[in-house]
Amino acid sequence: MSIHAFDAVVVGAGPAGEVLAGRLADGGLNVAIIEQHLVAGECSYYACMPSKALLRPGELLAEASRVPGASQAVTGEIAPEAVLERRDEVIHNLDDSSQIPWLEDKGISLFRGAGVLCGKREVRVGANVLIADRAVVVATGTGAAMPPIEGLDSVAAWNNREATTARSVPDSMVVLGGGPVGVELAQAWSSLGTKVTLVEYESRLVPREEPFASEFLADSLRNRHGVELALGARAERVSEKDGRITVTLGDGRTVAASELLVATGRRPQTGELGLESLGVEGGGFLNTDDTLRVEGFSWLFAVGDVNGRALLTHMGKYQAWVAAEQILGREARATSEALGSPRVTFTDPQIAAVGKTSSEAIEEGIDVQAVDVPTNSTAGASFTGKDVDGTCRFLIDRERRLLIGATFVGFETAEWVYAATLAIVAEVPVGTLRHVVPAFPTRSEIWLRLVEALEPAQN
Amino acid sequence: MSIHAFDAVVVGAGPAGEVLAGRLADGGLNVAIIEQHLVAGECSYYACMPSKALLRPGELLAEASRVPGASQAVTGEIAPEAVLERRDEVIHNLDDSSQIPWLEDKGISLFRGAGVLCGKREVRVGANVLIADRAVVVATGTGAAMPPIEGLDSVAAWNNREATTARSVPDSMVVLGGGPVGVELAQAWSSLGTKVTLVEYESRLVPREEPFASEFLADSLRNRHGVELALGARAERVSEKDGRITVTLGDGRTVAASELLVATGRRPQTGELGLESLGVEGGGFLNTDDTLRVEGFSWLFAVGDVNGRALLTHMGKYQAWVAAEQILGREARATSEALGSPRVTFTDPQIAAVGKTSSEAIEEGIDVQAVDVPTNSTAGASFTGKDVDGTCRFLIDRERRLLIGATFVGFETAEWVYAATLAIVAEVPVGTLRHVVPAFPTRSEIWLRLVEALEPAQN
Repeated sequence: MSIHAFDAVVVGAGPAGEVLAGRLADGGLNVAIIEQHLVAGECSYYACMPSKALLRPGELLAEASRVPGASQAVTGEIAPEAVLERRDEVIHNLDDSSQIPWLEDKGISLFRGAGVLCGKREVRVGANVLIADRAVVVATGTGAAMPPIEGLDSVAAWNNREATTARSVPDSMVVLGGGPVGVELAQAWSSLGTKVTLVEYESRLVPREEPFASEFLADSLRNRHGVELALGARAERVSEKDGRITVTLGDGRTVAASELLVATGRRPQTGELGLESLGVEGGGFLNTDDTLRVEGFSWLFAVGDVNGRALLTHMGKYQAWVAAEQILGREARATSEALGSPRVTFTDPQIAAVGKTSSEAIEEGIDVQAVDVPTNSTAGASFTGKDVDGTCRFLIDRERRLLIGATFVGFETAEWVYAATLAIVAEVPVGTLRHVVPAFPTRSEIWLRLVEALEPAQN
Repeated sequence: MSIHAFDAVVVGAGPAGEVLAGRLADGGLNVAIIEQHLVAGECSYYACMPSKALLRPGELLAEASRVPGASQAVTGEIAPEAVLERRDEVIHNLDDSSQIPWLEDKGISLFRGAGVLCGKREVRVGANVLIADRAVVVATGTGAAMPPIEGLDSVAAWNNREATTARSVPDSMVVLGGGPVGVELAQAWSSLGTKVTLVEYESRLVPREEPFASEFLADSLRNRHGVELALGARAERVSEKDGRITVTLGDGRTVAASELLVATGRRPQTGELGLESLGVEGGGFLNTDDTLRVEGFSWLFAVGDVNGRALLTHMGKYQAWVAAEQILGREARATSEALGSPRVTFTDPQIAAVGKTSSEAIEEGIDVQAVDVPTNSTAGASFTGKDVDGTCRFLIDRERRLLIGATFVGFETAEWVYAATLAIVAEVPVGTLRHVVPAFPTRSEIWLRLVEALEPAQN
């Protein structure tokens, strides 16, 4: 057993952990980071990054097919092997050695293995005990949650890891779960030639987003992508025979495929973290305050998915900034999540949203005005995403005259959500938006449509 | 001679004139609009719209060629005839009849012909005299300015009108002028197969933008698009022989092509407007105050390019809103131009900018901090515009801690400028941007790069 002293020990080297460790090192602290799998984390190897690599070629070819003069040049088909090769490049062939020089440059000590808390400011990793003078930060993220479905544990089901790193295109796939992970991977594999059936317990896809987003997406997956959807369907039983997995639904129907992807949710990776040594129950999300301290502790922080505040890479990186400022003795608070974290589902159409949805606003008793605008109601949409239907919804707090939510459904709307986040977080008065002029002919004129729609209410 | 009474008479039915007439009609006024060519104006038929139609297919195919898996499907070439057909669709084959129902719905009276002011609140158009009870609005825009080059008036040179509506692809073209119009059309025709030489008097392209923007664009036009550039070159003489136009440059070199496009600037269309009847000299831009009233008049307004405030369609539409509010007796002022109008050059790379450039800020004596970030320094840039180099520059007023300018050079950066316009016009404190979190992995994380770069200065 060897004992090492640090200023701070970070458990988990995903995006949040890495940002945090880097900031602490930049601040002059002696930092250790512990990682039991790959430095850079789930997002880089098994989630955001590979899924985008799988989705982009299909998205681009679909757009080219809609643009006369370009469509004539697209005489071939998408090349699945080249897509998978590019995906491998993006995920560095699941090799994290390219991350090591960055850690070394920053003077951060990497310990490989599972970090286990063993009392106040102590973390054990293998035969090493790391003592943190100032802070221990948990950034262990989440793993795929496997639902209690009869027979599921006896088949070789995929979760996001297998579904983002598969080395060949399955001939068929059943996807359990119509949240962002399920729908993105359903579309991605479908674009590469897999026959996909998606089963969702709720009556609609991406049930946390606005209902119209679900409808546009369902219509597109069914009619443009050939994905079969079973909505409002409970998976009752799973079995495997001769390499084919069959899922029996609540109404007795069965769906079968060569692969089964389970994308029904995430669970925090806190079960084997030694939290019991601190009197905290393991297995759940770690509750934090706006300084990212775990409730009841001055020296224990939790950043990223593991605290359950917002399961999004960018919010984890934001939290890492806040926690680093706190550990470095400076003032910062995570105030953005309460206003709303931006979230993007990179499907066809894309669903980019921030802040509240209509039903959330209503539940909170806000006097809310919803302004709906067709995504393609601008001149710019004549050239980009021309035939991809969608709606943009802006939610205005009538009393405060502030934007409190926005949902953009359409072709490549992912970059639009930043401006909405800015308007919400900076609390820009709606009246000011009249003077914020979008360039012609960009699709940002969707904001002009909003302003025009608001005029009768303002005059 | 027949006399008609209206509440307001709008001279010119381009985007600004149309928006204004529509708003006045919505406000209950009896409105006439006068147009001597096509309802919807220069922008719709001969500028912004057709140029985007010509540029988009090439842009999209270039992007597809950069994305493994998609590139394999692009085995053919761009189809110029299909591009021109789509362009014709966008410009309605130079037929404005599709605009008429909108005017009729609004109850706006259209008079075709040249509007000539003939004294106070009177406009003559052909055999009709229109009397305006409240306001006359000049919205006649600009036309191409032909520079005083020897021999130019004796050759069949193109301006933006011919260059956006040509019905076949010229084998070669000399473009005079490296401003937005010249560079966009140089790239567009080059993408369709024309051998293009561009001559610019200044030492760099788009000389009003940041110098780095000029450099990225020059490099791309030369090396990716095969456009020959003659920078810092004065066109001395033009001649035509056997259908070939030769331009002699100041240093004696000659460049020749089958077509010559003159894109050296714009002049206001006020020469034949009858301004003399009001004691105003014609031919120049009409000076306006922030209510868009022409200086010295309570009833005469000028909106759009003709007032020279900002030669941009979107700013004309914004001015039209202001003027309409004023005419309808409500308060509104055009305050945005002073902070900066967004402007986009839709080339490869795109140049999207708003507010001040570095040199403007320095000239104005502002203590300015420039933050430069590589456009492709985000995870999102792994998937979109991967190999298109560029720089994003953010300009911060050090004293006021406000963003006062931004320039985004890169692939499809046009939509990025709206957020920068919002930050500038709403005067969002730079410190607040730290809490405005861009979604991962979108390219909007360029804003995170800005925030990170500003940190040392803030701590």
